[in-house]
Amino acid sequence: MRCEFVAIGTELLLGQIVNSNAAWIGEKLALAGIDCVYHVTIGDNRQRMIDTIQQALDRSDAVIVSGGLGPTQDDITREVIAEVMGVGLTRDDEIAERIRDRFESRGRVMSDNNLRQADIPDGGAAIPQMPGTAPGLICPVGDKVIYAVPGVPFEMKMMVEECVIPDLQRRAGVTAVIKSRVLKTWGQSESGLDEMLTERMAHLDKTGRATIAFQASGIEGLKVRVTVKANSEEEATRILAEEEAEVRDVIGVYVFGTDDETMESVVLQLLRERHLTLAVAESVTGGMVAARLTSVPGSSDVLRGGIVAYASDVKFSLLDVPEGPVVTPDSARAMADGVRKILKADVGISTTGVAGPAEQEGQRAGTVHLGIAFGDLIEAQMTQLPGDRARVREYGVISLLNFLRLRLLGRDAHTPFSGGATR
Amino acid sequence: MRCEFVAIGTELLLGQIVNSNAAWIGEKLALAGIDCVYHVTIGDNRQRMIDTIQQALDRSDAVIVSGGLGPTQDDITREVIAEVMGVGLTRDDEIAERIRDRFESRGRVMSDNNLRQADIPDGGAAIPQMPGTAPGLICPVGDKVIYAVPGVPFEMKMMVEECVIPDLQRRAGVTAVIKSRVLKTWGQSESGLDEMLTERMAHLDKTGRATIAFQASGIEGLKVRVTVKANSEEEATRILAEEEAEVRDVIGVYVFGTDDETMESVVLQLLRERHLTLAVAESVTGGMVAARLTSVPGSSDVLRGGIVAYASDVKFSLLDVPEGPVVTPDSARAMADGVRKILKADVGISTTGVAGPAEQEGQRAGTVHLGIAFGDLIEAQMTQLPGDRARVREYGVISLLNFLRLRLLGRDAHTPFSGGATR
Repeated sequence: MRCEFVAIGTELLLGQIVNSNAAWIGEKLALAGIDCVYHVTIGDNRQRMIDTIQQALDRSDAVIVSGGLGPTQDDITREVIAEVMGVGLTRDDEIAERIRDRFESRGRVMSDNNLRQADIPDGGAAIPQMPGTAPGLICPVGDKVIYAVPGVPFEMKMMVEECVIPDLQRRAGVTAVIKSRVLKTWGQSESGLDEMLTERMAHLDKTGRATIAFQASGIEGLKVRVTVKANSEEEATRILAEEEAEVRDVIGVYVFGTDDETMESVVLQLLRERHLTLAVAESVTGGMVAARLTSVPGSSDVLRGGIVAYASDVKFSLLDVPEGPVVTPDSARAMADGVRKILKADVGISTTGVAGPAEQEGQRAGTVHLGIAFGDLIEAQMTQLPGDRARVREYGVISLLNFLRLRLLGRDAHTPFSGGATR
Repeated sequence: MRCEFVAIGTELLLGQIVNSNAAWIGEKLALAGIDCVYHVTIGDNRQRMIDTIQQALDRSDAVIVSGGLGPTQDDITREVIAEVMGVGLTRDDEIAERIRDRFESRGRVMSDNNLRQADIPDGGAAIPQMPGTAPGLICPVGDKVIYAVPGVPFEMKMMVEECVIPDLQRRAGVTAVIKSRVLKTWGQSESGLDEMLTERMAHLDKTGRATIAFQASGIEGLKVRVTVKANSEEEATRILAEEEAEVRDVIGVYVFGTDDETMESVVLQLLRERHLTLAVAESVTGGMVAARLTSVPGSSDVLRGGIVAYASDVKFSLLDVPEGPVVTPDSARAMADGVRKILKADVGISTTGVAGPAEQEGQRAGTVHLGIAFGDLIEAQMTQLPGDRARVREYGVISLLNFLRLRLLGRDAHTPFSGGATR
């Protein structure tokens, strides 16, 4: 079973929108065991839409088309699919009623144009899921199929996950159950993880029991995805658990979370379980550590707050940092200790360093000291971070949160960059 | 002159990377007056690469291929282009020397594989710009042309901007000078701006003097791009200045910056010119205002720092907020006044509100109070922001910075959402 993805939208060609739908659909299809070997983007142009969908149908078994399902005259995906199928369009009264209801339930007035959305190519059907006002389409063409979904990401995602992929798997005769787990890591490079897992990956290559893939995710660290294909839900679950354990045996020290967990959600949960509150003192990261922690709903039961001590004299006067150079382990320690006292928290953490582009206090951009004050333990860790100003700050944030995570777990900190802990 | 963009990379099909190169190239081509009507993504597969590049060449005048120029066996773009051209490959000694130099200058050892990158299809040439170790290619095919550039964004961008687009314009006989200016706005919806500019846009449609386009940019606000095409640099500059003035006459109150300026860079510059320092007190935005301000290099001469008062009692004890409900105008005012005192800044700004998903103090998610303390003026503004937790926080940040910007300019605040200022 081979599938193609066709995105319709002049705004994509003009670069006004990045085609992130293509990446999302590509990942979902791959995880579902469906090959997708072409992504094509075209504008709202009738002839090019016909040519492209026809070509996709000629060389593949299924086509997913996104966009062009709206109510305006520019939205011609319905008409184009009908033309490719060689059929007419018939208005579906039930769908028309659902569209009318959607507008009324939101207290909006519907213009008659919107009823064009209820026109279905003969022989096709509307996709049952309809989170917005644009219905999607399933249109069989001989033993092949065209799916049409809206370009709006949340509408597209619901239809693809709940309708298109199961339908593709049924058509492909995929009876295998595919399951995967993402292990999120921080503190080791991709080539480092690859080397550590070489033996296991070679074994899996031979047995076909599972696959291991790496995905660099910037400030989210490096993801390791373990995927298994099995004949039943139970078997897939069992093999996935076994393989996850194998991988963790080798690289477990770098794994901070799985699937939807983030470094911040994990750290907050560890603190919550220990009934500890947190305060943050930031210089080089300028509020980003606090911002990332407060992005998690419910973080207020753990995070007391933070102090962005950007000017040096704010560090001295408010956080009791000893006067002198501030890009130092001493300063990081004093900031962490100072902020937990002033904000009455159990644990204090801190950053001080040089984001760049210019050097500071004779230290080069990328030099960052991380501090933790937790009970009697007041320590600092130096790290030399790569990249531009934005990168250095982002890496500083996740490095600090990982440092705290490891301390809460009672383990030594590992960093992907140079540096070491000092007390 | 019609152009196509072909991206090579299995990682794009699998969704491991978002194809942001396509959007970037699409925007640059549009600005250069070159049509680009197809973006196609394929994997590192020889036959599909040949088919796709051949088809693009058949139906268009030029093809830009990105990716597959690296040194590994998977990187076959050079060979594929030679096959499409029906020619062989010849190693270019000068390019080979440059590749060797690049490695040596970075203190790295070059493996012989890397010299494959110096193989040029006969009749083609290397692109002069070479920021990395992978040379790009210009390969004429009859009166058409294939360009090959690396997939690495910064290498691709330099080659496209400095070589591919000028070459395309020369081939297309584009002698016109195209210039554009982006006006960045906050405080008005896209349909609102569209309505205000209807008359001017109709006039421009008739005269062809310039075009006006809108681009929603999330937390960066709404961009209005004015583009002119003229026969000379001087004429283009003059018309652009005139049209910018016309647009500003109508929507100027919403324009906070142009081109590379950001809300934070503009606010910092206004403060700097007035020799004012700033302090930030944040609750609902949890550090994001400070993080955004400190993302600008050199912000330390203006920004003293900030306090993230996430727990209510931190607001009371540290910022002297009166005890009681905290999602109130009084609280926003007290926070702004408190933080400028404690951090010894001239101006204090603040946020307090409900990010959601749950309501708080009986107020629904999206309710945000913004505070400013500046001289004798201590005021608050209420705004009801749309969207999920992340959106509410992001909109809160830019709303606060715009509120401060307008106060520094002595104007009333305009917000795109409901609400009003209270003193």
